[in-house]
Formats: sequence, C-alpha cells, structure tokens
Amino acid sequence: MDKTLSLCCDLIRLPSVTPDDRGCQALMMARLEAIGFCCTPLRFGDVDNFWAVRGASGPLLAFAGHTDVVPTGPESQWHTPPFEPTLIGDTLYGRGTADMKASLAAMVVACEEFVDRHPDHHGRIGFLITSDEEGPAVDGTVRVMEWLQEQHEQIDWCLVGEPSSTRSLGDVIKNGRRGSLNARLRVKGVQGHIAYPHLADNPIHRATPALTALVAEVWDEGNRFFPPTSMQISNIHGGTGATNVIPGELEVVFNFRFSTQVTDVELRQRTEAILDAHQLDYEIDWSLSGQPFLTASGELVEAAVESIREVTGLETELSTSGGTSDGRFIAPSGAQVVELGPINATIHKLNEEVHAPDLPRLAAIYRGILERLLAEGVQ
Amino acid sequence: MDKTLSLCCDLIRLPSVTPDDRGCQALMMARLEAIGFCCTPLRFGDVDNFWAVRGASGPLLAFAGHTDVVPTGPESQWHTPPFEPTLIGDTLYGRGTADMKASLAAMVVACEEFVDRHPDHHGRIGFLITSDEEGPAVDGTVRVMEWLQEQHEQIDWCLVGEPSSTRSLGDVIKNGRRGSLNARLRVKGVQGHIAYPHLADNPIHRATPALTALVAEVWDEGNRFFPPTSMQISNIHGGTGATNVIPGELEVVFNFRFSTQVTDVELRQRTEAILDAHQLDYEIDWSLSGQPFLTASGELVEAAVESIREVTGLETELSTSGGTSDGRFIAPSGAQVVELGPINATIHKLNEEVHAPDLPRLAAIYRGILERLLAEGVQ
Repeated sequence: MDKTLSLCCDLIRLPSVTPDDRGCQALMMARLEAIGFCCTPLRFGDVDNFWAVRGASGPLLAFAGHTDVVPTGPESQWHTPPFEPTLIGDTLYGRGTADMKASLAAMVVACEEFVDRHPDHHGRIGFLITSDEEGPAVDGTVRVMEWLQEQHEQIDWCLVGEPSSTRSLGDVIKNGRRGSLNARLRVKGVQGHIAYPHLADNPIHRATPALTALVAEVWDEGNRFFPPTSMQISNIHGGTGATNVIPGELEVVFNFRFSTQVTDVELRQRTEAILDAHQLDYEIDWSLSGQPFLTASGELVEAAVESIREVTGLETELSTSGGTSDGRFIAPSGAQVVELGPINATIHKLNEEVHAPDLPRLAAIYRGILERLLAEGVQ
Repeated sequence: MDKTLSLCCDLIRLPSVTPDDRGCQALMMARLEAIGFCCTPLRFGDVDNFWAVRGASGPLLAFAGHTDVVPTGPESQWHTPPFEPTLIGDTLYGRGTADMKASLAAMVVACEEFVDRHPDHHGRIGFLITSDEEGPAVDGTVRVMEWLQEQHEQIDWCLVGEPSSTRSLGDVIKNGRRGSLNARLRVKGVQGHIAYPHLADNPIHRATPALTALVAEVWDEGNRFFPPTSMQISNIHGGTGATNVIPGELEVVFNFRFSTQVTDVELRQRTEAILDAHQLDYEIDWSLSGQPFLTASGELVEAAVESIREVTGLETELSTSGGTSDGRFIAPSGAQVVELGPINATIHKLNEEVHAPDLPRLAAIYRGILERLLAEGVQ
C-alpha cells in the first residue's frame, strides 16, 4: 500500500473528535523524529499541539494543520464506519480523510522523501500541529504562535493543509482569506400595548430603515484578490410572543467578510455612522474573528503553482473565498501563507471521503515545494 | 351602606376569575327578576351568560357587561385580599371593582330605581351579561348575539359598562372602537453559510426594505372620530442562533388598528401590494379580530352626554381609542353602542380600585339614560 494512504488510514483509525487528539500527534512525531526532527509537545488547556523543526538555520518552511475532526453526526447514516478507513474502488471513506488527515499524511511522507534525498537541505522545515482547529480555536494555533514568538521563531513560508481543491486536486489554492467581523446590535425602544403606539417606541420600526441602509451599503468593490466585502444578518429577534405587545428591544446579529480594501475599524465606524444617522438608541458589541490576509505573490505561491503544474498539469487558481482557517493566526506574524489540500466536497458531511490516488500526488506536490524552496543549492 | 356599593361588594366576594362566573349572574338575575325582568340563562361551552328583558314591546335599551375578572397576579403583592372588598377612606379595593363589577352593580340599581319610578316604562330594558370577556371571548357575547338573532331580537341602544373614564367619572365615553387586523408573514429565502452568500438568499435582507415601506406607509389620516390607522410589528424572528448561518426564513407578526376610513380588505390588498413590489417570496396569514364601529351620534350618545352633564357637570369626550371590547360583537347588529363606566387607571393591575362615591353617581348616570330614553311619554 502507498505510504501516504497507509499513514492516512492509521490516523483515521484514531477517533480524534475535536479537541481530542487520541494519539495522532504522537504517531506523527515518531515519524518526524525518525528523520531528524526535534519535536516539542505543547499542551495548552485541554488541547494537544506540537511544534517540530529540522535544520539549524536559514529560512523556515512550516507545514500547519490539525489532527482533530468534526463529530460524525448520526453514525447509522454512514455507509461505512466513520473511524474505520474503507477503500471502495478509488475512494477512501472516513471521518477526517479530507479534513485533514490526508494532508497530514502527505506532509510527513513528503518530508521523509525529501530528507532522504536532501539530508543536508537548506534552511529549516517546521510542523505546527494542533488538535483544536474545529473547536473554539483558543488553545491551539493561537497559543503555539505566541509560544513561537517567545522563542523568537519566525515562520517564513507556511503551507496549511486545509482542503482547498474543488473539483480536481490542486485546481485551487487559497493565498489569503477575507477578514471576519461580528456584530451584536441591540436597538432600544419602549415596550407598550399595541393599541397605544404613541405611548411606546417600537424598536423594530426604528431599526428597519437602518437595516435596509446597512444591507444596501456597498462596503467596497473588492480587488484583484478579494471579492467585495459582504455583510450578512444571521439573526434578528424582537417580540414577546404576544401579538398585542410592542417589544422594548430588538437584537440583530450580523457578520462582515471583508477584503483588504477596508479595515475592521472602518467597517465599525461606517456601521455606527449609519445607525447614528437613523437616530437609533442602541448598543453594539463587536468581535473580530480574523483580519484578512493575503500572500499575493512570492516564493511560496510560485513554488506551489509550479509544483502543482508539475504533478497535475493544472494551472491552479489563487482564491481568497470561503470560511476562515488557522492561516488567519499565522499570517499576522509576517509569514507567507498558502492553503493547499485535497478536494473539499465532502468535508464536515456524512461519508467524508478522498480520492485515494490523490494522496501520493499531494505528497508529491508538497515535496515539490520543499525541493523548490529548501533543496541544497537553493538560495 | 349605599345600595350600589353594597351590591358591588357582594359581587367582588365571588372570585369569578375568567371564565368562572361563581354565582355572580345568579345574584344579578335574582335582583332583576324581583323587578319584573324575564331572565334566560345561556350556557355555551364552559361559559355562563344570561339575557334578561323587561317590557313587552318598543325600542330596546340593553346593558352589556361581564362578570368575569382577570387573574389577581401574585396575591402577596396586594395590599388587601383581592376578593375581600375593602374600603379605605373613599377607595374600594378588590379585583374586578373597576372592570367591571361597579358597573354591573350600578346597572342593576339604576334599573331598580327606574322601575320603581316608571313601572310602566316605554320600550324594553335588556341585560346581556357574559363570563367570558377577559378570556377567548368565543362562547360569550358572540354566542348570545347569535342567539338573539335567532329570537329575532334587535338591540336598538347598547350601554356597555366597560371602564371608560380616565381621570374623573364620565370624562370619557367610547362611542366606537378601531378595527383590529392581525398578520403573520413568513418571508422565504435559501439557507446557507455566511461565507458563501451568493449560494444563499437571505430572507432578512430581502424583507427589510419591504418592512421599511410598510412602517412608512400612511394608511389613512383618520377622521373626526378615529385617529389614523396604525400598523405595529409585534414580533420578528429569523436565524438559527448560529452566527455563521444565513437563515432560510423570517417570520414577522404585525397588527393594524384601523379607522373607518379603510377596510380590512383594503389593508390586506395594500400590504400584499407592497410585499409584491419588493418581489418577496412569502406566505401571509390574516385574521380579523374586529371591525371598527362607530356610533357617531343618535339618541344614545345624546342621552349619555346629557346624563353625565347632569350628574357630574362634565362635558364628556367621545373617544374611539384603546383596545377592543365586546362592543365589537354588538355593533354589527345595527345597535347604537356606547361604553360608559368608572375610571380605568387600575384595571388588570395589582390593587385594582374604584372611588367609592363614584358608584351611586354611576348608577345615577345610567338611570338618567333610562329616563331620557324609556320613561313614559318619551317618543
């Protein structure tokens, strides 16, 4: 059996439902130590993480990923047991196959093959692995990045194993992500009987013109790498349930996915200016989930594009769409960040799967990036 | 002790929490039969009602009211036991004093005094009494009105004992009420992930411009007797609770209190035209709680105005404001309807009370109306 497929299957057998690592990291560290990596387990709170590094000096290429998986959902609705890797034809089924144990296996195997060919490679190779990417993401990558900063360790290039491909392995890589900004708005009014509206102040009536203005606002036009900033209301709640009572408060929850054309501060200011222009009495709580980041060009993007072309023949598409990833915690350090992994069609779903022949090809793509950036004689 | 005050206290001692009459109607019927009324108990479902009439022919003046009271709320927060009538100074405390056992007592005493003076009065006097005005109001006045129709009985003038006064006994009478029309709107969208809004269709975003238009709409200007029609949103709910999910549906509940310048059919059509103009995919359920009614002028209003002036010296104000009452079920029969009762400041509240000296004065006002409409020689 192919080495990448084999290691992926070993990882799937460990039911590492977030945030429980279940020994996945020990398995990875054993393989990495065998080829000269120095591994540091980093447990923060209930979360297992580790940092591994090989090489004494020079630029640092780090693989980043997570061993935790999302819950299976109702197991009876899986066609195969979710933690028993099952190959049917060319399809490997199991929870975490695509997100992201195939990538973890491919990273390890790529390093094994690369180190075998280049035992005295240029620069350094790192692994930043967490078991809390699918959960609150508080004691995971964020804490490891803080720890690395304390060690004065700077990642130059970071390859995140998130499943970025859409229809064919390598067709899309993520070279950035939009920022995410959350707001919880409470519009105040005065409760009263619906037959006496002049004695009340209906916060729903007050808010609707302001919400209409927020929805209609063009926040930016996006740019070459980012789609236009999007505002979406996810929740709106007002009312006591009674049909004859004007409520005293309306709550509205909304989120911005924003490009690098605006900042979170600008979005906050512009939102509050619209609310103020509509003379609302309100409170608003803001929370920033992540700044947008972008690796527009540079050695890492070039190496990824070339390696994908070599292995698959595809011209990959650079994309910044989709949800957030742990890349948001790594990019602010100044690292170039690219996300590259298998097809994401079944992630978080029942019967999650990967195309088995893609596993050695993904390892080959990762190794090609190592070759381009860290082989002897590079730089 | 004054007869009206005494009967009011007897009624308060019967804890007739809606829809339980607890013998109030038997007490009233005994008094009315003693002065020549023919009484017909009318039990519909779990609800006690009665109809009483005195006189053989001619125009019919009916007193209308209810023996049921709203629950006490926490009894420990009452200063006096709610079903033990307690006079402190000039204030009579007890659940149902103002709404509306003072009125019931005043109606009975007014008839006793009137019949004593005019045993062969002109026309007929009626009583339409229910114990389901504070509850669903399904087996109460509505059913009695149906029964009266089957008997080919037509009320010409109806005096409803609802507490209409605001600061001083007789300062306000209600000569009509606004209509009440309820709507439950569901705006359809397509659920999706907040990071991929182009794959979803946010029903909150779709709805807010339409709701803004509904709130801004001037439905009419009202008229001499009615304030402008008012639309109020009482409840709005959309969202799964998750902050990263665009919901698939938004529910909005709203109510019209409408004047005689528009009809419920027009309000429905105009609302749906606004929703259609905003190209919403929606379902809407309508329910009509009551048509507006108005007794702009006529013998009953004149008699009430004059009798109030005679007893109190006040020029009463004709009003159509406030909530609905059982008058809405009586007016469609063609009756002139006026609501006239004590001060409503404490109704439905803890420590409900009436000003005790107002009770004989209310009986005198009611008797003055009987005198003006049904004494011998009138007509």
